[in-house]
Amino acid sequence: MNRGDISIKFCQKASMVERMNKENTLNNNFDLKAQANNELKSYLAASDWPIRLKMALACRKLASESHAETLAGQITSIDENKDILTSSIVGGFANAREDTIIKINKEIEVIEGIGIPNPGVRFHIWIYQERKDVRSIVHTHPPFASALSMTGKPLKVAHMDAAMFYEDCAHLTEWPGVPLADEEGKIIAEALGDKRSILLANHGLLTTGRSLEEAVYLAVQFERAAKLQVLAESIGEINAIKPSHGREAHDFLLQDSIIFGTFNAWTEEILRNQPDVRASA
Amino acid sequence: MNRGDISIKFCQKASMVERMNKENTLNNNFDLKAQANNELKSYLAASDWPIRLKMALACRKLASESHAETLAGQITSIDENKDILTSSIVGGFANAREDTIIKINKEIEVIEGIGIPNPGVRFHIWIYQERKDVRSIVHTHPPFASALSMTGKPLKVAHMDAAMFYEDCAHLTEWPGVPLADEEGKIIAEALGDKRSILLANHGLLTTGRSLEEAVYLAVQFERAAKLQVLAESIGEINAIKPSHGREAHDFLLQDSIIFGTFNAWTEEILRNQPDVRASA
Amino acid sequence: MNRGDISIKFCQKASMVERMNKENTLNNNFDLKAQANNELKSYLAASDWPIRLKMALACRKLASESHAETLAGQITSIDENKDILTSSIVGGFANAREDTIIKINKEIEVIEGIGIPNPGVRFHIWIYQERKDVRSIVHTHPPFASALSMTGKPLKVAHMDAAMFYEDCAHLTEWPGVPLADEEGKIIAEALGDKRSILLANHGLLTTGRSLEEAVYLAVQFERAAKLQVLAESIGEINAIKPSHGREAHDFLLQDSIIFGTFNAWTEEILRNQPDVRASA
Amino acid sequence: MNRGDISIKFCQKASMVERMNKENTLNNNFDLKAQANNELKSYLAASDWPIRLKMALACRKLASESHAETLAGQITSIDENKDILTSSIVGGFANAREDTIIKINKEIEVIEGIGIPNPGVRFHIWIYQERKDVRSIVHTHPPFASALSMTGKPLKVAHMDAAMFYEDCAHLTEWPGVPLADEEGKIIAEALGDKRSILLANHGLLTTGRSLEEAVYLAVQFERAAKLQVLAESIGEINAIKPSHGREAHDFLLQDSIIFGTFNAWTEEILRNQPDVRASA
Repeated sequence: MNRGDISIKFCQKASMVERMNKENTLNNNFDLKAQANNELKSYLAASDWPIRLKMALACRKLASESHAETLAGQITSIDENKDILTSSIVGGFANAREDTIIKINKEIEVIEGIGIPNPGVRFHIWIYQERKDVRSIVHTHPPFASALSMTGKPLKVAHMDAAMFYEDCAHLTEWPGVPLADEEGKIIAEALGDKRSILLANHGLLTTGRSLEEAVYLAVQFERAAKLQVLAESIGEINAIKPSHGREAHDFLLQDSIIFGTFNAWTEEILRNQPDVRASA
Repeated sequence: MNRGDISIKFCQKASMVERMNKENTLNNNFDLKAQANNELKSYLAASDWPIRLKMALACRKLASESHAETLAGQITSIDENKDILTSSIVGGFANAREDTIIKINKEIEVIEGIGIPNPGVRFHIWIYQERKDVRSIVHTHPPFASALSMTGKPLKVAHMDAAMFYEDCAHLTEWPGVPLADEEGKIIAEALGDKRSILLANHGLLTTGRSLEEAVYLAVQFERAAKLQVLAESIGEINAIKPSHGREAHDFLLQDSIIFGTFNAWTEEILRNQPDVRASA
Repeated sequence: MNRGDISIKFCQKASMVERMNKENTLNNNFDLKAQANNELKSYLAASDWPIRLKMALACRKLASESHAETLAGQITSIDENKDILTSSIVGGFANAREDTIIKINKEIEVIEGIGIPNPGVRFHIWIYQERKDVRSIVHTHPPFASALSMTGKPLKVAHMDAAMFYEDCAHLTEWPGVPLADEEGKIIAEALGDKRSILLANHGLLTTGRSLEEAVYLAVQFERAAKLQVLAESIGEINAIKPSHGREAHDFLLQDSIIFGTFNAWTEEILRNQPDVRASA
Repeated sequence: MNRGDISIKFCQKASMVERMNKENTLNNNFDLKAQANNELKSYLAASDWPIRLKMALACRKLASESHAETLAGQITSIDENKDILTSSIVGGFANAREDTIIKINKEIEVIEGIGIPNPGVRFHIWIYQERKDVRSIVHTHPPFASALSMTGKPLKVAHMDAAMFYEDCAHLTEWPGVPLADEEGKIIAEALGDKRSILLANHGLLTTGRSLEEAVYLAVQFERAAKLQVLAESIGEINAIKPSHGREAHDFLLQDSIIFGTFNAWTEEILRNQPDVRASA
């Protein structure tokens, strides 16, 4: 599907939404919010791009946000057969293409495609075993989350755009060393608990999602949240937000419409500027 | 109008200005400043590009300055019929095109074009109701303004390039939560008062203008002013400027010539580098 | 002259230098340094590009280093007739082209080319009057120099790459307001004294040069020196360098070969990536 | 070899690796790590690109990471005849091409190719004399390492991605002045001792490698490690890592597979985006 196709698809959806807009008659705050959210849900749905293209675009987006400066970091997505899609470590995220996405099994054996997984994928397996709700995991070492992870401080959530982490970001406070083996998988899975995300001491971040889009969305926003914290703390104390606002914003920002709409916007830009991400390019 | 056309237009104006320059005979400080300002006014006028192209270029400029990292943020412009132009939330600012700019009414219903507005536009309506001088509003969450907004500190105006905010930037010191409903509109409109701009705690910035160009100019400069403050405060105390200088610079930087000239320069560069912003691209 | 031409020119010079290399037989520290400097001098000379192309490339380079985020800032170069070349304020530095460089006289009247000078050029005139050794001036407001200028601190020179400012950077510690009129020209010229560069409180930087290349080289390095200072002071105290080393490095970095070689490298890259800077593009 | 060729080469290797994956049956932590490392070794080998292309790509990569903002900095690689490849100082790293890489002898005389070496290469000679294991050296002044070098602090290694410097980064705590002559060569070689890397006070960084790839890998990661330290220390104290973990990670990150795989990924991206780096471009 080329860029024109995307626009047409959006326009078709838009016509429906325009009709829905005509029924906009309520005035109560609660109703307005519910209505706005419903509209967004119908409009901003998951794209029907092939999953391998989505993963390659996600790798390129993460690379463009300094999440993949070396070969460290992994992205995985699990399907109905418990098979796992991931990117080949060769070339790193910045050179990922639709045809460098491979399928592996729980033993980290390649069962489809050509390439080799990052050995660190092993600890993703542990999380998938413990968390049946998780369908995708991103683990990276971008600079602000990495710097924060060196200080022993937790991620402080005090900005609207960071609220997806409000009471939803664990903290592994001690680094267990290079995470290639099963032991580290157990440690990280346990520390994650039932949260979506975790800050890993002296190491980086890990995010999970009910979808690839959610895990990627959280990874990108995690690094930005860490950046806000570092910038704010470099000049003073951070003012906390009210827990009720934090929780409301958390749920708002984790709606499918926001997650998919944001992922779609990010990847549309990447696809326009880096068309070689396609297998046929 | 392509880039060649822009150059020709500028050259035609330039001939007039060159003739005006010949009459430059005064030597008094006050007169020199008045004269310089008059020249700039005649030269650096609003471009006659279609408003939708200007808005799409503004979206791309804001995206290029980290104002639109997610779908959060809105830009609106009101016309003589009180109809409101805004960008479709789909694709975000970075993918805006001339043909993704839509027209909505006060009930946030789409009345022209295909797309869906950001639900947060609702609080712009409140500001337009309270402030008849305002024709355009930008609200975004760029990183330095966001970080500053987490600290409880106001924007400190101590640099010439930030002087458009001298005694002209309000501060909402408590975050009222995700701003989708009417309540938040009232709170923000009230806190803004008669200022052009406002720093929103734990949230971001909002700027208004007598024109689209002014609101965009203020939004871009607000983030840069916040950046200067964060950098300066990370190494020491900020030295205040004299109020009389601050006020003079404030008025100087808010002349139409400066606003339009700056907007024209920014968007000329965007149009050269991102020609797909045009509907026909 | 296209990129191929540049390479050929460099290669021709290179042959001469290769022959010179054969005569390299000395082993004394002083002689080695003298010899190395002589080689560089013969090799890294001013390019013979037209002055207007050099100025347009300088504008683009400055823009690419955040020196020209608004229309503020000026670049001028004086010729043997005391006529002054400068860029038109329209479009700012980022859109400068060979054919948007204009010639003005001491009354800031345009005498060649089409465009309008930045009114702030007026205070350059004062500096040219006071400093007969100065043939070019750059004045800009990039972020790190601007942030530093808000703190009241002088530029601290404690890194090799900043040594061109060692005992050679003045400090105007109070901002006299928007610099459009003659009064500010006198203040800045007086504060500059016999230094090459000056930090302007709450405002930015100004650099001068015996050539366009030198003024531009100093402006770009000034901002980087301010960045090093801000980064270093954000985590601790700066260790001073020995005055004798500082003075030696100052003189080393202000050799023509270093200045022209650096300017040539910067502008070669700009020309490759932004070929529209040429008038004929 | 064009981009398609690269992909084919990778795919051929990938088939072998896929077969190797089938034999993956062990479950012990030690064995898993050993196995993963073996796989990576077989897969992520040095590319067979010409050394001059690799050097030019390395220069461009370093330039893209702010290691070459001026003409300062050098990269050298020594061959079996003790002849030294380096880039011509003309044009700096950002404009390096396969055909601007020159060969010099120990007297810094050009013996192959057209260009002139950076005179600072002289102190590389001293290191090659003292350290027979070293085949390549990179010396640069990127901003975070430079800022750190101004504070008197050593590089603190407290992040996984910085562990290649764990107990393996020397510190020259006093700046001996502009390093053009033999005296500085002795000082730096002595301070380096048997470490791979060194932080040079008020100056920058120097890294060595058993291969070009290793020296470049270390240089890029050094600057990033300094960035993490500056960001972390701007908001608090850094938590140390366990020495046993630091040492394990050090050795892990210095495996050939990691070094070559990372270098290959970086340069693949550069080659795609800057094809003019080839001599024939």
